[in-house]
Amino acid sequence: MKPLILQTDFGYADGAVSAMYGVAACVSDELRVFDLTHDIPQYDIWEASYRLIQTVSYWPEGSVFVSVVDPGVGSTRRSIVVRTANNQYIVTPDNGTLTHVRRMIGITDARVIDETANRLPGSGESYTFHGRDIYAYTGARLAAGVISFEQVGPAVPADSINELPVVEAIAESDHITGTIDVLDVRFGSLWTNIPRALFLKLGVAHGQRAEISIANETRTLYKNIVVYAKSFADVYVGEPLLYVNSLDNMALAINQGSFAKAYNIGTGITWKLSIRKAPKVIYE
Amino acid sequence: MKPLILQTDFGYADGAVSAMYGVAACVSDELRVFDLTHDIPQYDIWEASYRLIQTVSYWPEGSVFVSVVDPGVGSTRRSIVVRTANNQYIVTPDNGTLTHVRRMIGITDARVIDETANRLPGSGESYTFHGRDIYAYTGARLAAGVISFEQVGPAVPADSINELPVVEAIAESDHITGTIDVLDVRFGSLWTNIPRALFLKLGVAHGQRAEISIANETRTLYKNIVVYAKSFADVYVGEPLLYVNSLDNMALAINQGSFAKAYNIGTGITWKLSIRKAPKVIYE
Amino acid sequence: MKPLILQTDFGYADGAVSAMYGVAACVSDELRVFDLTHDIPQYDIWEASYRLIQTVSYWPEGSVFVSVVDPGVGSTRRSIVVRTANNQYIVTPDNGTLTHVRRMIGITDARVIDETANRLPGSGESYTFHGRDIYAYTGARLAAGVISFEQVGPAVPADSINELPVVEAIAESDHITGTIDVLDVRFGSLWTNIPRALFLKLGVAHGQRAEISIANETRTLYKNIVVYAKSFADVYVGEPLLYVNSLDNMALAINQGSFAKAYNIGTGITWKLSIRKAPKVIYE
Repeated sequence: MKPLILQTDFGYADGAVSAMYGVAACVSDELRVFDLTHDIPQYDIWEASYRLIQTVSYWPEGSVFVSVVDPGVGSTRRSIVVRTANNQYIVTPDNGTLTHVRRMIGITDARVIDETANRLPGSGESYTFHGRDIYAYTGARLAAGVISFEQVGPAVPADSINELPVVEAIAESDHITGTIDVLDVRFGSLWTNIPRALFLKLGVAHGQRAEISIANETRTLYKNIVVYAKSFADVYVGEPLLYVNSLDNMALAINQGSFAKAYNIGTGITWKLSIRKAPKVIYE
Repeated sequence: MKPLILQTDFGYADGAVSAMYGVAACVSDELRVFDLTHDIPQYDIWEASYRLIQTVSYWPEGSVFVSVVDPGVGSTRRSIVVRTANNQYIVTPDNGTLTHVRRMIGITDARVIDETANRLPGSGESYTFHGRDIYAYTGARLAAGVISFEQVGPAVPADSINELPVVEAIAESDHITGTIDVLDVRFGSLWTNIPRALFLKLGVAHGQRAEISIANETRTLYKNIVVYAKSFADVYVGEPLLYVNSLDNMALAINQGSFAKAYNIGTGITWKLSIRKAPKVIYE
Repeated sequence: MKPLILQTDFGYADGAVSAMYGVAACVSDELRVFDLTHDIPQYDIWEASYRLIQTVSYWPEGSVFVSVVDPGVGSTRRSIVVRTANNQYIVTPDNGTLTHVRRMIGITDARVIDETANRLPGSGESYTFHGRDIYAYTGARLAAGVISFEQVGPAVPADSINELPVVEAIAESDHITGTIDVLDVRFGSLWTNIPRALFLKLGVAHGQRAEISIANETRTLYKNIVVYAKSFADVYVGEPLLYVNSLDNMALAINQGSFAKAYNIGTGITWKLSIRKAPKVIYE
């Protein structure tokens, strides 16, 4: 029996998540069910995709993830289960939720859920809660071994899985430009799509400084010189720092403050962040 | 050993819920404990009652629910355990929390908790946290099979259980009027007490339109014509829709918006919603 | 296998807590993992310390707590595991998080985590998420019995554990003065450090009245006469009351209101609360 991990944009305030847990408990009284998060902003498929890539690799092989951020519930969007290159399963509407996992881990197999076989018995008249009636039910049965991956439904090409548009970080002569992908919500740090390996090409060592520019469309919101620190403790409280986040990408923060709130920074592909090795400043 | 499911208005920010989990873990190291929600608005017995009816039927037979929304803690209100017609147990103060379960599922047996036998040892000087000392403790022991239902305490008549006042939906000549019972919190949808079966008497088919009126006391807050949709995907983003919710009742929403915020709609028996088959409008 | 209980200031909105759960699930597929809370205000070591003392005694002997409120991540602050006088374990940065447990329960043994042996394999280049890479990993392995307490790392003196400054409640001739340690967040009640036993020296019985003064630094924010009640139900809705909280300390609340919001009361050692037996008022 494999762990089942649930992610939604339902919040915890009503009984929706608990109903999904109940469906899983009815499938098996030994199944272990966990949360990824249920606080994905409503309809934010991008963030759902990001939270998956942020966490799946810390879970055991064979784990089954159910992700339900589903603005198109009731439309013709497909309901799918994929197997990743790390041999984990993700049950989700095929609406871009797998963007990061597909690019950074890889998807080896995909199947469309056959709803005639894989739908909570008696739920036929409800068209608005597939999270409970189809996704949690199918994920729980897969994790518990009641059905095999093959019994999910017919195979479809792995490269038919939908992706959201992604902009790659690029290195130019003396600077690297990427996008601000997501916030470390509680602490207001900016997480970029610039991998540490790419950043290192600038030749900035720990303790040295880099010039950071942040722009949204044509508007520059921040331009300043910041230390590249190993950790928050290397700078003063209230001082900004550039660091490597827990996904091995470059991130920007204010020690014990919120960078996002301080400068009204948002996320998405229109939010660009550039890093340049700082010129040496000599005070005479 | 049966699942134990906890609901409170305590929130997650302090250690109260964790203390309840700890009490359960001390009763048995095999007991499986889950959350319904801990974000019931403080003292809101009505919503506690509603969240129970929304979820209990998705949990296995024999499940034990503990619901603690208890503005009268320390008063003479009874502490009870009931057995429902579906053979599940609910441990709660007898303050109206069982209103919906009693009406829509049925209560077959009720017992008052004998606190001399069913109170966390050593908790005698605390009078303000029955959720931990009495309800979680008794629920955990019942779910783990340490005590039987009979050992909870003396039986009382099932029809002595307290109910909050409820107004039924009614069908009149050409329209149906019900109340707005609760919000789908995260998405701002309005959930009414109008069953789908009652609504269908109006003869409105999927894709057809109905006229919706919403009033609080004597004040009308909304009057408009809305499509009866199978799912959100049947209407444009930003368009209102009437649909069947996951409880098989009629609900009103704005696709990817919040109906409740858009029109300042609240819940409770003073909030009336009427549905009328829309007159056919012919543009010439 | 012992329960593992996690506390952080990470919130639930991103995947950080889920990554910690995943690490634990990889250590053992039988380990039972629970939450204390993840809503500690960011960097608030005092509150982390308080939530531990509020809950640990309700969990079984041998339980392993992981508490990560760590403004000094990456600094030279030690990472430790302690054994308490009640034979439970706490894994935490040594930054004051153990203040209340050390004073009120006692710490019998302490060990510094040897990160060469007790760090998630492959996490060496991340310096900002010790909660996942060191604390959750070590806590899970200790709870699962993969390592013994001795294998955590070298022993250090139990009295070398850092404490935050604490002010004790003191009894003077006719009144007792303490500090407001923490709020009962959801209900806005004030929890003081005045033990019930100390309060009882004033000779105030249930139903009698006491004069309460609250001051922050030199400013008095509240001075009034309040009933000492056994429970909330002993006073009117909206009436203030003095009562014994679930930690056996004196607390102040408004029945079904928020004392903290009503009078803008905060917490910490600058917030003093005095209790005096109320003079008898005779209306003629």
